[in-house]
Amino acid sequence: MSALSQTTAWKSFSHAVSASPTKPATLRILRAAELEVDLSTQRHSPALVIAARALLNQQGFEQARADLFEGAPINWTENRAAWHTALRAPTPPSRVAHAVQAEQAKLAGFVERVNAQNLYRNVVHLGIGGSDWGPRLAVESLAGHAGRRTIRFASNVDAHAITAALEGLDPSDTLIIISSKSFTTIESLANAACAIDWLRAGGVKQPLDHFVAVTANAQAAREFGIREEHIFEFWDWVGGRYSIWSSIGLPIALGLGMDTLNDLRAGAAQMDEHFLNATLEENAPVQMALSAVANCSVLGYASFALCPYDARLRHLVPWLQQLEMESLGKSTQRDGTTLDVASSPAVWGMPGTDSQHTFFQWLHQDGKGAPVDFILCAKPDHRHTRHHRLLIANCLAQRAALLEGKSFEQALAEVSLKEKNPQAAAALAKHRVHPGGRPSTLIVMPQLDPKQLGALLALYEHKVFTEGVLWGINPFDQWGVEFGKRLAGDIERRLDALGSDPAVSPYDPSTAHWVRKLASG
Amino acid sequence: MSALSQTTAWKSFSHAVSASPTKPATLRILRAAELEVDLSTQRHSPALVIAARALLNQQGFEQARADLFEGAPINWTENRAAWHTALRAPTPPSRVAHAVQAEQAKLAGFVERVNAQNLYRNVVHLGIGGSDWGPRLAVESLAGHAGRRTIRFASNVDAHAITAALEGLDPSDTLIIISSKSFTTIESLANAACAIDWLRAGGVKQPLDHFVAVTANAQAAREFGIREEHIFEFWDWVGGRYSIWSSIGLPIALGLGMDTLNDLRAGAAQMDEHFLNATLEENAPVQMALSAVANCSVLGYASFALCPYDARLRHLVPWLQQLEMESLGKSTQRDGTTLDVASSPAVWGMPGTDSQHTFFQWLHQDGKGAPVDFILCAKPDHRHTRHHRLLIANCLAQRAALLEGKSFEQALAEVSLKEKNPQAAAALAKHRVHPGGRPSTLIVMPQLDPKQLGALLALYEHKVFTEGVLWGINPFDQWGVEFGKRLAGDIERRLDALGSDPAVSPYDPSTAHWVRKLASG
Repeated sequence: MSALSQTTAWKSFSHAVSASPTKPATLRILRAAELEVDLSTQRHSPALVIAARALLNQQGFEQARADLFEGAPINWTENRAAWHTALRAPTPPSRVAHAVQAEQAKLAGFVERVNAQNLYRNVVHLGIGGSDWGPRLAVESLAGHAGRRTIRFASNVDAHAITAALEGLDPSDTLIIISSKSFTTIESLANAACAIDWLRAGGVKQPLDHFVAVTANAQAAREFGIREEHIFEFWDWVGGRYSIWSSIGLPIALGLGMDTLNDLRAGAAQMDEHFLNATLEENAPVQMALSAVANCSVLGYASFALCPYDARLRHLVPWLQQLEMESLGKSTQRDGTTLDVASSPAVWGMPGTDSQHTFFQWLHQDGKGAPVDFILCAKPDHRHTRHHRLLIANCLAQRAALLEGKSFEQALAEVSLKEKNPQAAAALAKHRVHPGGRPSTLIVMPQLDPKQLGALLALYEHKVFTEGVLWGINPFDQWGVEFGKRLAGDIERRLDALGSDPAVSPYDPSTAHWVRKLASG
Repeated sequence: MSALSQTTAWKSFSHAVSASPTKPATLRILRAAELEVDLSTQRHSPALVIAARALLNQQGFEQARADLFEGAPINWTENRAAWHTALRAPTPPSRVAHAVQAEQAKLAGFVERVNAQNLYRNVVHLGIGGSDWGPRLAVESLAGHAGRRTIRFASNVDAHAITAALEGLDPSDTLIIISSKSFTTIESLANAACAIDWLRAGGVKQPLDHFVAVTANAQAAREFGIREEHIFEFWDWVGGRYSIWSSIGLPIALGLGMDTLNDLRAGAAQMDEHFLNATLEENAPVQMALSAVANCSVLGYASFALCPYDARLRHLVPWLQQLEMESLGKSTQRDGTTLDVASSPAVWGMPGTDSQHTFFQWLHQDGKGAPVDFILCAKPDHRHTRHHRLLIANCLAQRAALLEGKSFEQALAEVSLKEKNPQAAAALAKHRVHPGGRPSTLIVMPQLDPKQLGALLALYEHKVFTEGVLWGINPFDQWGVEFGKRLAGDIERRLDALGSDPAVSPYDPSTAHWVRKLASG
């Protein structure tokens, strides 16, 4: 591996990207499951197709993809598989089939029982990060599909989160789910303590009977006092940011029905098939990953924006932030050398059209800007035809404007309609120039339903996996998250210990100052 | 002006930034109004203090600041003032005092009247971008302060937004506010049309009597059919992204009381005083701007993250995205030359601790990372002491970790506790190295109340203004927003026109394809 930038394949790839036209003139739309992925405005050329294939080969893409689906220990720093695809396969791989099917049956049985007995009108889900964004996104964006129960989410350790989540609910009719892979997540345990107090204050004699745990550490859940039949397990080979496919999907099943959870999985499985079987050139996750690497590592875009033109997909932004930034935010390659090309763009975004009135100015006229992933639903789930036409028109218009830009001559012609002084007009026109040539991807879903959402999530999962392969990094660990947790524990003890001597603080002067100043008591 | 990078002051500034230590050893905490702004972990040195002052002088900072407060036409591409400070001054400047006081009295009178008559239990606010984020942020984050009415916001033209906002409300008891500076904003007008239908379907005979307009185009509001006493005006010298200080604050007054709106303004006015009077070295907005320019233009950070450790400040992120990216996302200097240093970082973020489980991995271990603005409230508004202690501990820990990092030696010692094979331990340790030396700012508010929130917003406003001065660009126009709007109108007509000939489309092949495919009918 060593210095990626010095390899033959990288040099050819980089050269082909730089030499490709900024305003491609041909259509390039890939069909993946039922989604259409339009890459027409990303860099493309015959030379780039060849160079991209060579880079994928050099980085061992086909083997890595096979390892992913076969449950090989591709999370090499933790020596384990990343086998989320096993959880949504129509037939789980034999090595884990028994465990997966047993858990899925246990979960389905639980949902069936509480539905039959009409239990728990309210569900409060305690989880954070990977245990939170997936279910939150699905429940919010698919709310139109059912709605048997009120489902609320509390993630933050800021007590306003749990307070708001419990407010107005009837404790006797409320189920609390603790979702935590390790069952040591401080946020979820602190919020669980609040929920126990709240249940007890609301007259529930056995608060823990209202709890369910979803975890890879069943022993800790038992010790916490949760009943055996209320403990749902997943395994260390399911990463937190892929855990929506495991029993972490329970709030989806409780809120929107077991069918919804099954359809989500079916849509993801369809995308798995595409990722496994489509040729490299027609493979949407692969081509999206290649564009991402071209944009970030060659063209110098340090971030990209996600703009779903559907207000229901609001939580797709944090879900993707976690998937991309927690997976790719690292720079040590497998052999221990430091990756020597820019990698892992920051991800941010907002649904359109809100985003147009928030940061599109920057996308159009900043000196650099950023690529954009646009997402559209062809068919709306409401009858407001004009609203939907406006939504589509705005999405296409922003994308066209980013590509086309506006030249000085065009700006001058525009300004000169009002400003008759040629010098003044020229001065103003300079401020209205848009460079154009800015790349974007457009994903068109037939409509927003569980299957399409499942396919969309799997599309991005495989895109990120492929980026990991191209950059030679492990997308499945997160040592940077562990580090901060340890420091927080130490600082919490210092904040709590009255009279602890700040002079012996191992921290920088500013941290020491605030620990002293904000200590309780 | 011309090439900024070639000026003496820029060269000295740039050199001083690069030469300053990455881990400063001294405290640098500025007090601004009642906020404390800790810049201890930003680049700093005696040479940088001198160079920064020279750069401010070269770029005409003091004159620009005076122009801002005096209402000079500093929005030079539109030849008008940007006089939002006049709206919150204890005594408005004489040139506009009459108009400002009359509007403020009209608004206060309206609020008093509807309160006295107990009118409108529900308020639905239709506005987008600058007409939306400010009131939405204030109403959401200060909800604990009053709550006389249900206030909902609909901004997006996606019909799910207005549908959700109206759902479950009693039309006879609902007031609709259209907030639009131009009164031509397509999102707000389309949503207003839905609201009229909804009121009528709900038995309201004169739907327009339930409407209020806040606009700089009163004539259009009159033509729309809104009663004269329900039209509140502001002026072309109030930019959309500063309009919370105008009558756009109406939903705040209706939802949280007139006192809340007044306190917000008072807090901002306190920050105005600080910005006007503090020395440059003790001036928080000025020093934050200098750090931002150092980070972006010299140290190469293309974005920064905003992490308020308070779940209630969730909407501060999009509010700041708009303020920063719409104000600074441009690169033409006053004299028409193109700015030749990197400018205007992308802004993104999320409240802590959610953010720790979403993108802090990237902040710690990505090859580059990004600076972070942390915000803490010293005193919580709840009784969950341990939760608040955990929140503070996590905020301080992340900041300390970003600064300190973890060396290979430290990582190796850690790994070797479990992995006894030295070669394997060394290989794993490489993946746990954290570079450290990553800058951040910590803003500590005594607690979250209207005055502190007002001061916080004004702090960022003046920071962004100062960045505009340092980069020599006009932060008060937004030509990139206008451009997209025009294209959207054209594409909407094409989507609507059955049988329009796609062969004559003036757009790129991809846009033409989707217009054809997604056209209605």
